Amino acid sequence: MRNITEHNITRAVIERFAGCSDARLRQVMGSLVTHLHDFVREVALTEAEWAQAIGFLTATGQACTDQRQEFILLSDTLGVSMLVTALNQRHPLGATEATVLGPFHVEGVAEAAQGADLAQGAPGEPLFAEVQVLGLDGRPVAEAEADVWQADAAGLYDVQRPELGGAHRARGRLRTDAQGWLRFRSVLPTAYPVPTDGPVGQMLRATGRHAWRPAHLHLRVSAPGFETLVTHLFREPDPWLDSDAVFGVRSSLVVRFERHEAGTAPDGTAMAGPFHVLRHRLVLAPAAQGSP
Amino acid sequence: MRNITEHNITRAVIERFAGCSDARLRQVMGSLVTHLHDFVREVALTEAEWAQAIGFLTATGQACTDQRQEFILLSDTLGVSMLVTALNQRHPLGATEATVLGPFHVEGVAEAAQGADLAQGAPGEPLFAEVQVLGLDGRPVAEAEADVWQADAAGLYDVQRPELGGAHRARGRLRTDAQGWLRFRSVLPTAYPVPTDGPVGQMLRATGRHAWRPAHLHLRVSAPGFETLVTHLFREPDPWLDSDAVFGVRSSLVVRFERHEAGTAPDGTAMAGPFHVLRHRLVLAPAAQGSP
Repeated sequence: MRNITEHNITRAVIERFAGCSDARLRQVMGSLVTHLHDFVREVALTEAEWAQAIGFLTATGQACTDQRQEFILLSDTLGVSMLVTALNQRHPLGATEATVLGPFHVEGVAEAAQGADLAQGAPGEPLFAEVQVLGLDGRPVAEAEADVWQADAAGLYDVQRPELGGAHRARGRLRTDAQGWLRFRSVLPTAYPVPTDGPVGQMLRATGRHAWRPAHLHLRVSAPGFETLVTHLFREPDPWLDSDAVFGVRSSLVVRFERHEAGTAPDGTAMAGPFHVLRHRLVLAPAAQGSP
Repeated sequence: MRNITEHNITRAVIERFAGCSDARLRQVMGSLVTHLHDFVREVALTEAEWAQAIGFLTATGQACTDQRQEFILLSDTLGVSMLVTALNQRHPLGATEATVLGPFHVEGVAEAAQGADLAQGAPGEPLFAEVQVLGLDGRPVAEAEADVWQADAAGLYDVQRPELGGAHRARGRLRTDAQGWLRFRSVLPTAYPVPTDGPVGQMLRATGRHAWRPAHLHLRVSAPGFETLVTHLFREPDPWLDSDAVFGVRSSLVVRFERHEAGTAPDGTAMAGPFHVLRHRLVLAPAAQGSP
């Protein structure tokens, strides 16, 4: 085609992918081009706006480091990450819902014993968590592997604190006991803003959006025969539950962390000051036919 | 909203932009989110594909340097750049059509005299160009400023040759004479592939696309009272005219560069070997009401 116009260009680009031997890639690229062009046409994007978009995307890529993924943050704040999670994690009724993994998960953390204090000195009020992992039939899932991670009272994850030199805090890996229980001590999670010192922060400010996420505890639970569950438990009440900057909140994941005055903690520890208790059940969906 | 699903998330994200005081930015972000989500839903993007997309966009940003703009190349190869040009450069019938600026334009090149040899040693067969700049009324436009730039016989622009140390070759700035003529000597432009050693090259290979652009000469012409014209003159014949990797070809911009055997060039030079002559008229559109 040698007479490209605003009317035929979308077809011209899609036809160029006709030689793609990967049918799925051909489908994805065709759909991407269609919707991207529709967006440009719908708003009649100006040349100056196009140049601004190129600059923004370039800066977003250049803000990424081993410790920071600004494109994931952009995907999160535009609701794309949660949409992908919702589309791919359709759990049956009764199973715990999934939400975004987020950028702060760490693979390969050493396994901690039941009842361990995962806080490891992280600032925050003490939290005692007792989470039982069940199947849809209500039977406990023993020997499930669980990753737990969260921000501390300053709103920071361990990986955001270079002074820790890579040591883990308020993060751990546990294994359920015969009755499906995970028991650990940590600190009370608090609300925190997503990083705003990069291009995504500029976007949030320019559009009048706040950067806050409501307080939450991350969990990833896997066991043979079950779908791996990636979710949060959100702490109620929280001013940001209805406006999570990354659109991750689902009503079923909003839970109470009970506050207690000084006294005896669930694990028998004598506490001189206030502490919090989280008791919750997670229900795993059965693995899809043919899944590992 | 605290119960995000695949069905309500698009509305939730758009509502989050309600506080944006810039009405145009609010419109652009709302449309972007709508079309981006529609794409993700239409193809039911998997989590693995999402991760691959994040990796691709990150690598694209990180491939950008002062000398290279990989995101513009991505925009070009997905037809977005040409679509933006087509939407914003709707010239009246009779005026020369616009096409993409491309990544190789350089601002502030020193002005050359009429008839100058812009090649400055660039490899290629000699070209003598005579381009007349007219208004829609057919009257010559004197004192128009014209930037001219092109690839050499190796398919490279001067800015892609670090060995030149920033010196210009096959590039120049001229001013039309009283009869609207631009006359210069250069080299015959040849077809060349866009850079394929980065993420965009990976995309082209993965989708079975070639990287070639048909041979062309770039022109940018501006004069008081007229719209600035950014265009190419494509050389016919060329095997890539119907499949330009960046979708920039318009029939009206495809022209003959006449080949001559040894003899006298249009400027009177005695040529010992073959040379080429380009004669063409460019017609400028009048400036829109209120434009500078």
